[in-house]
Amino acid sequence: MTGGYSLLVADLIGVAVFAASGAGAAVAKRLDLFGVGFVGFVAALGGGLLRDLVIDAVPPLAFGDWRYAVTAVCASVAVFYLHPQLNRLRRTVLLLDAAGLGLFTVTGTLKALEAGVPAVGACLIGMLTGIGGGVARDLLTGEIPVVLQRDIYAVVALGGAAAVTLLSRLELAGPLPLALSAAAMTGVRLLALYRRWSAPVAVP
Amino acid sequence: MTGGYSLLVADLIGVAVFAASGAGAAVAKRLDLFGVGFVGFVAALGGGLLRDLVIDAVPPLAFGDWRYAVTAVCASVAVFYLHPQLNRLRRTVLLLDAAGLGLFTVTGTLKALEAGVPAVGACLIGMLTGIGGGVARDLLTGEIPVVLQRDIYAVVALGGAAAVTLLSRLELAGPLPLALSAAAMTGVRLLALYRRWSAPVAVP
Amino acid sequence: MTGGYSLLVADLIGVAVFAASGAGAAVAKRLDLFGVGFVGFVAALGGGLLRDLVIDAVPPLAFGDWRYAVTAVCASVAVFYLHPQLNRLRRTVLLLDAAGLGLFTVTGTLKALEAGVPAVGACLIGMLTGIGGGVARDLLTGEIPVVLQRDIYAVVALGGAAAVTLLSRLELAGPLPLALSAAAMTGVRLLALYRRWSAPVAVP
Repeated sequence: MTGGYSLLVADLIGVAVFAASGAGAAVAKRLDLFGVGFVGFVAALGGGLLRDLVIDAVPPLAFGDWRYAVTAVCASVAVFYLHPQLNRLRRTVLLLDAAGLGLFTVTGTLKALEAGVPAVGACLIGMLTGIGGGVARDLLTGEIPVVLQRDIYAVVALGGAAAVTLLSRLELAGPLPLALSAAAMTGVRLLALYRRWSAPVAVP
Repeated sequence: MTGGYSLLVADLIGVAVFAASGAGAAVAKRLDLFGVGFVGFVAALGGGLLRDLVIDAVPPLAFGDWRYAVTAVCASVAVFYLHPQLNRLRRTVLLLDAAGLGLFTVTGTLKALEAGVPAVGACLIGMLTGIGGGVARDLLTGEIPVVLQRDIYAVVALGGAAAVTLLSRLELAGPLPLALSAAAMTGVRLLALYRRWSAPVAVP
Repeated sequence: MTGGYSLLVADLIGVAVFAASGAGAAVAKRLDLFGVGFVGFVAALGGGLLRDLVIDAVPPLAFGDWRYAVTAVCASVAVFYLHPQLNRLRRTVLLLDAAGLGLFTVTGTLKALEAGVPAVGACLIGMLTGIGGGVARDLLTGEIPVVLQRDIYAVVALGGAAAVTLLSRLELAGPLPLALSAAAMTGVRLLALYRRWSAPVAVP
C-alpha cells in the first residue's frame, strides 16, 4: 500500500471524482471558471491536506506531487464545460464518490498509523481524509456541510477506518484485506443511498 | 502545568463543556447524530488542533490522546439525547464554558511559550486556543462566529494570555498564579455576561 | 529576497492593506471592535499562515514576528474608527490591495521553492498566499469567497507564481525580476478592474 502504480491510479481516480463533486457544487453556485477549479481542488485534496498537516508530512501530497493537482484541475474544468451532460451521469458520480470515500479512508488511516498516531487518532484522521474535502467544499459554497446533515456517510468512513486500524494491529493489513475494506465501505455507502438509510435527528 | 493528573481532569472538563456547546448548536440546526458528534468534536478540540499545528506538536493532542476525542464524543452524544433537559441547565453551561475559556487559554499560551514562540505570538496562540473551537463551531453551522459579534469573550482570553505570558517571563508561572489567571478570566467573563458588557460597534 | 529592510517594509504594507480590507468587510457586517480586529488579522496573515503550515515553517511568521500582528491590528483598528472617511479612499485601497496581491504571491512562491516544494506545488502555494487571506475573510463574514465569484484575481496570482517559479528555475530570481513580477501582477489586476474583465461562468 506504499505507492505502487495501481494504487496511484486508484488514488488519482478518487481525486478526479471528488474534484468533480466540488466542481459540480461550484457550477450550481454560479462561480466562475477559476472558482470552479478552486472548489474542485479543495474538495479533491482538502482531506489529504488536513491529514498531511496533522501527521506533519512535508510538503503535503497536494503540493508535493503535481499529478494530484493537475488531475483535480482537469476534472474540474471538464465539469465546467460538460456539466449539462454530467447531470445525466449522476448515478455514475455517486458510485465513484462512494469508491473514493472508501479509498481515501483506507489510505488516510494507514498513513496516520505509519506516522505513529495511536489507534483512536488514526481512525479519526482516516475518517477526516475521507470526508474533509466534502466539508471544505460545502463551507466554500456557503452551505452547512451535507455530511453533517443526512445520509450514512461519515459513519461508513469511521467504521472502515476502525476496520483498517484493527487489521493493521493484527498485522493483517495486506493489499487484499485493505482492498476488501475499501470495497466494503463503498458497498455500505451505496446500500445506504439505495435504501435511504439516515442517522437519527434529535427530537425538538 | 505539564500534564499532572488534576490538570488532565480539568482539561477534559473543558473539552466536555466545549463539546456540549458545539453539540447544542448542531442540535439546533437539526443535524443528525453524526453531525452533532462532529461539531462537538471540532468545538472541543479545534482550538487545540490549530495550536498544535502552529507549534508543530505531532500528532496533535486531539489525535494523539484518545481520552480527548472520547470525552468530546461522549459529551456530544449526551447532549443529543438529553438536550431538552439541558436547556434548563443553560446557566450551568455558561459557567462551565467560562471555566473552559480560562483553562484553554492558560494551557494554550504556556504550550506556545514552551515551543519557543515569542511573547506576542504566544498571546495570540493562547487566545486562539480558547476561542478557536467556538469559531469553527459557528462556521460549520453556517453562522458568523458569535465571538466576533457581541460580548466580551475573546478580549478576556487575550488579556489572560498576556497575563500568563508576563508571569512566565517573570518566572512566576507556578500552579497557583496560573490557576488564579484562569479563575480571573472565568470571573471577568461571567461578570461581562451578568452586566451585559459588550465591545463597541462602529457607527455606520 | 531574504528579509532585507525594504522587503520587510513592503511586506508590512501588504499586511496593513489586507488587514484594512478585512476590517472593512467586518465593519460592514456590524461586528464589534474585537471582531473587526480578528477578521483584519486573519485577512492579513491567513494566507501566510497557511503557507507556513504547509512548508512547516515553525512558528509561522504571523506568530513568530510581532511586527506582523501589530501592523494588522493597528490597521484594523484604524479602519474601525475612520471607516466613513476610508470609503472615499476606495480607489486607493483597491490600488494597495493589488500591490499586496503581487507582493504576497512573489514571497509565498519563493518561500515554497526554498522549502523544497516542486514547481507545481510552489505555484499553488504562492497563489494561496496571495488569495488565502481574502478567502478566510469572506468565510468569517458569512460570504461565498468573492475571489471565486467574479473578477480576474486569483488567475493573476497563479500566473505571477508561475513566472516567479520559472525565473527561479532559470536562476534569474534577483531583486529586479521579482519586483517586476510583482509590479506586473499589480498592473494586470488593476487593468482587469478598470476594464471589468471577468472569468467565464458556466452556462446553466
